[in-house]
Amino acid sequence: MAKDFIKREENYSEWYNTLVERAGLAENSAVRGCMVIKPYGYAIWENMQAILDKMFKQTGHQNAYFPLFIPKSYFEKEAEHVEGFAKECAVVTHHRLKPKRNGEVGLEPDPDAKLEEELIVRPTSETIIWDTYRGWIQSYRDLPILCNQWANVVRWEMRTRMFLRTAEFLWQEGHTAHATKEEAIEESKTMLDVYADFAENFMAIPVIKGVKSPNERFAGALDTYCIEAMMQDGKALQAGTSHFLGQNFAKAFDVKFLTKENKLEYVWATSWGVSTRLMGALIMTHSDDNGLVLPPLLAPLQVVIIPIAKAEQKIKVDKVALKLKEELEAKGISVKYDDREQYSMGWKYNEYEFKGVPIRITIGARDLENGLIEICRRDTLEKQQQGLENLAARVETMLADIQKNLYNKALAFRNARTIKVDTWEEFTQRIEEGGFLLCHWDGTAETEEQIKKETKATIRCIPLDADKEEGKCVFSGRPSHKRVIFARAY
Amino acid sequence: MAKDFIKREENYSEWYNTLVERAGLAENSAVRGCMVIKPYGYAIWENMQAILDKMFKQTGHQNAYFPLFIPKSYFEKEAEHVEGFAKECAVVTHHRLKPKRNGEVGLEPDPDAKLEEELIVRPTSETIIWDTYRGWIQSYRDLPILCNQWANVVRWEMRTRMFLRTAEFLWQEGHTAHATKEEAIEESKTMLDVYADFAENFMAIPVIKGVKSPNERFAGALDTYCIEAMMQDGKALQAGTSHFLGQNFAKAFDVKFLTKENKLEYVWATSWGVSTRLMGALIMTHSDDNGLVLPPLLAPLQVVIIPIAKAEQKIKVDKVALKLKEELEAKGISVKYDDREQYSMGWKYNEYEFKGVPIRITIGARDLENGLIEICRRDTLEKQQQGLENLAARVETMLADIQKNLYNKALAFRNARTIKVDTWEEFTQRIEEGGFLLCHWDGTAETEEQIKKETKATIRCIPLDADKEEGKCVFSGRPSHKRVIFARAY
Repeated sequence: MAKDFIKREENYSEWYNTLVERAGLAENSAVRGCMVIKPYGYAIWENMQAILDKMFKQTGHQNAYFPLFIPKSYFEKEAEHVEGFAKECAVVTHHRLKPKRNGEVGLEPDPDAKLEEELIVRPTSETIIWDTYRGWIQSYRDLPILCNQWANVVRWEMRTRMFLRTAEFLWQEGHTAHATKEEAIEESKTMLDVYADFAENFMAIPVIKGVKSPNERFAGALDTYCIEAMMQDGKALQAGTSHFLGQNFAKAFDVKFLTKENKLEYVWATSWGVSTRLMGALIMTHSDDNGLVLPPLLAPLQVVIIPIAKAEQKIKVDKVALKLKEELEAKGISVKYDDREQYSMGWKYNEYEFKGVPIRITIGARDLENGLIEICRRDTLEKQQQGLENLAARVETMLADIQKNLYNKALAFRNARTIKVDTWEEFTQRIEEGGFLLCHWDGTAETEEQIKKETKATIRCIPLDADKEEGKCVFSGRPSHKRVIFARAY
Repeated sequence: MAKDFIKREENYSEWYNTLVERAGLAENSAVRGCMVIKPYGYAIWENMQAILDKMFKQTGHQNAYFPLFIPKSYFEKEAEHVEGFAKECAVVTHHRLKPKRNGEVGLEPDPDAKLEEELIVRPTSETIIWDTYRGWIQSYRDLPILCNQWANVVRWEMRTRMFLRTAEFLWQEGHTAHATKEEAIEESKTMLDVYADFAENFMAIPVIKGVKSPNERFAGALDTYCIEAMMQDGKALQAGTSHFLGQNFAKAFDVKFLTKENKLEYVWATSWGVSTRLMGALIMTHSDDNGLVLPPLLAPLQVVIIPIAKAEQKIKVDKVALKLKEELEAKGISVKYDDREQYSMGWKYNEYEFKGVPIRITIGARDLENGLIEICRRDTLEKQQQGLENLAARVETMLADIQKNLYNKALAFRNARTIKVDTWEEFTQRIEEGGFLLCHWDGTAETEEQIKKETKATIRCIPLDADKEEGKCVFSGRPSHKRVIFARAY
């Protein structure tokens, strides 16, 4: 076990921060709220990007790139949108520095280089993109437009945490334009399905698909669909959102098209995004008191092979190790043979365990004489001695099994902490323990706000598959027709 | 031939701008100097990224991500560096907007949200990265560090042109840290070789590897290596740079390491980058008066198949087309079968020709009865009737041939316009015609500046393979030992 590493139950928040830094995922930078994503963390993000990008392309989307800066006046055009983002945005006011006028050493913004109109560093790109789409769309023949961009965005959050909430973060944002309302709604649901597929089948994180209450909607959306995951402390984490934007941005930016019937109509829109926040979800769903645990499908390194051999035996061990490495690589599995002599076996064990490498294989000279190696899986920490025959195939199977096991474990955890709550007394007790509370809600913003005020719990979503069920609001007692999910959230 | 499309010889600059827009590569945005990279243009950039990224990883580099913002004080720490970038940088001064105080409609930067220290949107990341490296480097065991990042950067250029010079652009920037001067110099040369390899073997652009004169060096570098290409108007374009930074940034950010001999020394650095500017180089090297010409290895779409068939014959044509498509795709070739009925054959011919698709195959019902199809290559516009046997293999060979032909054509063009010039009179005449002038230079900044002032020509580079040759400076007549390349440049 890693030395000096804090346990989850001691201080979950400190456990997370320490893990992120010590596993080489990220660190805080000198710029307030901005992080440095370190090579190992970035390699995981690259794996996520590659899979998502492929999924986007398979569903007909293309990548493009839009400007980092948004003129202030654009930002102002959609009323709810600006209300949602104006309070936490980075504002560029000058385009030059010059030596300080008071004679002190150093530079200051040059007053002669003040911008006529301030530029906002994009917190999201609806406005600049819809301004661009106006030039791309004349008739129904130009629709749909299915664009995505991979980009950095800035939201000046006051309280930041690496990956979960940072002033600058990396994300993808899809922005699509459609001829009909139905098509736009279908697109936003399709992308929600893509996100759920990715979360469950690659990140091994079970998610609940739902729709946000009006209070929690994206600023400017008519509906915000979301996937919600549960972390190991029982808190919810919104892992991805897909917005049906109606004609709000088309109206704000005057984007109309000629229908087949030769009528001029406003275009329908969606936007959808996931960000480096997913890294936080990944870490907090699977990792344990020994460090990071990674699902094999996202691990930068899937298998590490470590030799134990004195000089004269090393050649034999090398031979077996390198053959195995080759066989695994032929199956598309990433493997490292770490036979560095300046690091001890103990150091290596700790290192790869802490970094969440799914499988560790130890090849010892003595065991090898009996035709055996040791294989250890990171998810359960189980060790087994195994023979060499068909080893590569068994490793491949074990990787698939680890992937499945992580998902099942997370699902069992979530299911055990998802409970129906019908009284306010039980609500106030249960919410302290974490988890998802399935409750009736009267559908009003006032009740939602009051519950948030008293318990810090919010409506995470109204599940898409919620059964119709008559009941009474857990807070107000007024009638309700289905249960929603309340939880405290990241 | 594309209608209303201007010829290169009429107005090269307008030809370029029109081409970029009409081929769907990019367009100017509402933000001064910033462009929108459209899906087709971005797809080419993605192909470039994928190849370069693989080359970087094969040479031992890892990706990471560093903050978009640089505190002003960091920026000031390396004297030459700040001198080079302070005059054209975007300065963030506030982190919130609020309703205007004078009662007018709209928002303004909130004076209560003025930053204590201004943040600069990165024009390049040496400062923030070397501030980070200080925490990563203690001893020689931590070296080398070989990081790259794919990012957007901002340089507030006054005169901008799509891809060639934009306020925001996309690039990669490698930043490496080494224990010795020799290793750092070797790294910067290795990366120059990677860039040259990429330019010549993927972009089909011949380049000259060289080193910049002190005047043209990167701000903060001891040596700037570069690859220089020649565009079709005879102007030079710097296609990539690799800098040996010495210990300048290590000193500015106090990054020292303990050597094997237990001595404390400053770390040695390199940085290297290529940007979306390469898109400009690609377009201006190969394209012609009919539109874009793309080397097959970077073309998002390599082959388009177009049917000519009336309804009753369409089934037969479809069958042949889809079989060919499948065979080509099995070879890893990207293919589109465009049998859309709402577009005429003429429209399609123009479209794919203008977009530079390397090979167009027309399958006509009548020709098919004789077992023939028509194949047209974009580089030469040659059309041939061919049989169906082994067609996929012949298409594959033809793609390789187009790739080679484009390179050879560009090389012949450059060679024909690279001339030795020994008198000032000839220099002033020849420079008007464009091309590279190989001249003796006395090695002084004064001469270089005077030549620039009088002719707008700069020293593009001192070629790495320049022969030692005694001569006299073309301007001052003073002694010189090798020839350098003068040219007007983008």
